[in-house]
Amino acid sequence: MLDYKLLHALATVVECGGFERAGDVLGLSQSAVSQRLKALEVRLGQPVLIRHPHLAPTPAGQRLLTHYQQVQLLERDLRGSLPTLDDPAPRLRIAINADSVVTWWAEAIADICQAEGLLLDLVIEDQDVGLKRLRDGDVAACLCATPQPIAGARSLALGEMHYHPLASPDYAARHFPEGPSDDAFQKAPAIVFGPHDQLQHQFLAQCGYHGRFPYHLCPSSEGFIRLAAAGIGYGMMPQLQTHALIDSGQLVSIAPGQALSVPLYWHYWRHSGTLVQRLTERLSQVTLT
Amino acid sequence: MLDYKLLHALATVVECGGFERAGDVLGLSQSAVSQRLKALEVRLGQPVLIRHPHLAPTPAGQRLLTHYQQVQLLERDLRGSLPTLDDPAPRLRIAINADSVVTWWAEAIADICQAEGLLLDLVIEDQDVGLKRLRDGDVAACLCATPQPIAGARSLALGEMHYHPLASPDYAARHFPEGPSDDAFQKAPAIVFGPHDQLQHQFLAQCGYHGRFPYHLCPSSEGFIRLAAAGIGYGMMPQLQTHALIDSGQLVSIAPGQALSVPLYWHYWRHSGTLVQRLTERLSQVTLT
Repeated sequence: MLDYKLLHALATVVECGGFERAGDVLGLSQSAVSQRLKALEVRLGQPVLIRHPHLAPTPAGQRLLTHYQQVQLLERDLRGSLPTLDDPAPRLRIAINADSVVTWWAEAIADICQAEGLLLDLVIEDQDVGLKRLRDGDVAACLCATPQPIAGARSLALGEMHYHPLASPDYAARHFPEGPSDDAFQKAPAIVFGPHDQLQHQFLAQCGYHGRFPYHLCPSSEGFIRLAAAGIGYGMMPQLQTHALIDSGQLVSIAPGQALSVPLYWHYWRHSGTLVQRLTERLSQVTLT
Repeated sequence: MLDYKLLHALATVVECGGFERAGDVLGLSQSAVSQRLKALEVRLGQPVLIRHPHLAPTPAGQRLLTHYQQVQLLERDLRGSLPTLDDPAPRLRIAINADSVVTWWAEAIADICQAEGLLLDLVIEDQDVGLKRLRDGDVAACLCATPQPIAGARSLALGEMHYHPLASPDYAARHFPEGPSDDAFQKAPAIVFGPHDQLQHQFLAQCGYHGRFPYHLCPSSEGFIRLAAAGIGYGMMPQLQTHALIDSGQLVSIAPGQALSVPLYWHYWRHSGTLVQRLTERLSQVTLT
C-alpha cells in the first residue's frame, strides 16, 4: 500500500507552487515536506518533481498525482454512503478550451458546483490539446474537438461553437477596404491564440489563401477580443462571446458569410465516480448556441 | 558565426508547435527541418528541443531563441537606416499578467502596433512570475509587480491595479449573510487564478483570517469573473474589469471597503533596440485607473 501522506505532500507542493507554502498548508516545516518527497522518490526510485524552469511534477510524479486524485474521488463516493466520515470538498481537474470558460461553462455548471460542493481545478488548453492531457492522466476530464474517446474513456457530443473573422470597423476599412483578398491576407496582421490554434489557418484555407501571414500571439480569450476591438488585428472569435460587440458595432466581419464551426466533446474516464457522472449528465443538457 | 538558418528552423518549429507545420512555413520537407535541428544540436553538443509532454525548447534551446530574437531586433534597427533591406515585421515576446491583457493593454499599445508594424507574442503570467521569464531570457520585456530591475535591465512604474473581493449578490447572501467572518471564510468557496496567485491569501490575511479555505482554480481572467457572476465562488477581481458588472448589480463586494492594490512595473533589457524604447515611452504615458 502506498503511503498517502507522501502523495498528499506531493499534491500540496504542486498545488501551492512551493515547499514553504505547502508546509504552511500542511502544518509542517519546509524540511519535513521535503523529507516526505524524498521518501516518495526513494520508494519510486526516480524523481517526482522538476524545479526548472517551474516547479512541476515529472511524468512519474504526474501519474502519482492522477492516482491520488482518483483515490480521492472514490473516497468521496465512500463518504456518500458513510456520512460520518469527514468530508472535505473534492477538486476536479478539467482541461477546458479558453473560449468555453469565458462563455457557456460557468452558467452550465453553477448548480452542480453548489449542490455537490464541487471545487474546480481548470486547466486552459486549446480544443486540440486537452485530450492529450486526459491521455497523460493529467486531468479527470476534458473538453475538446475530437469525437473519438481514448481507451478507458467515453465522449459526449455537446454541440458546436461558431467562429467569425472579426475586426474593428476602422481596421476592416484600413486592411480590407475591398473585402478579403490574397493581397490583404498577406499584409493584414491577424491574431492567433497560440501555436496549437489552427482556426486562422483553416479560415484562410477556406478563403483559398495558403501563403504566409503576419500575426500576433495572444493566449487570452478576452485579451484576443480586446486587441481586435483596439484595431490591432483581426481573428476568429466565437459568436457566443462577441454578439454584443457586433450588435454595438465595435466588431465587424471582414468576410461576411464566412464562418467556422468547432465541435466540442466532453471526454471523461469511465470509472471516475458519481461526481463526474453527474457533471456529465448536466453537460448533456447544455445548448452551446 | 552561428548558422542562422538553423536558429530560424528552431524558432519556427517552436512557434508552429511541430515539424510538419514548420516545414510548411519554411517551404521545406519535415525531414529537412529535422536535419537542421540535428545540425544545431551537433554544433551545440546538447538537445535544443524536448518532445514530452509538449514540444518545447530545452533551457539551451531557449537561450538560442532569445539570442535569435535579439539579433532580429537589432536587424530591425539596421533596416531603419538601410530601408532597401527587406523588412518583415518583428514579433516581440512579452510576459504580461492576465488582468492587464483583458483591461488597459490593448488600448495603450494600439497606435504603436500600427505605426511600427509591431507583432506581439504575449505570454500570460502572474504578476510575480513574469520577471523570472525575463531573467531566463524567455521574453524581451515583462509586466510584473516587482519594482527592482534585474541586472542588465530597467524598470518603469506604471501605477497600481485595484482589486476588490466580489461575488454574485446571491452568493454573497448565501455565504456571507453577516459579512466577512472566520467561519464564512472557512466554508465559502473562493476562486484563485493559479498556484502563483497570492491575492486571495493576502486579502484573507488582511481580514485577520489565516486558516485554510476551499477554492476553485481558474487560470482565465474573464473565466474567473464568469464563475463569480454565476455564483460559483468569490474572489479578488480588478476594478478596471468589473466596474460595469458592479454598476449593473451582477457583482457585489463581500467586504465593502476592503481592497488590495497591486503595483505594475514594465521591465525591459537595456539594449533591446528602438522598438522596445518606443513601447516604453508609450507605456510611460499610461493611466491604469
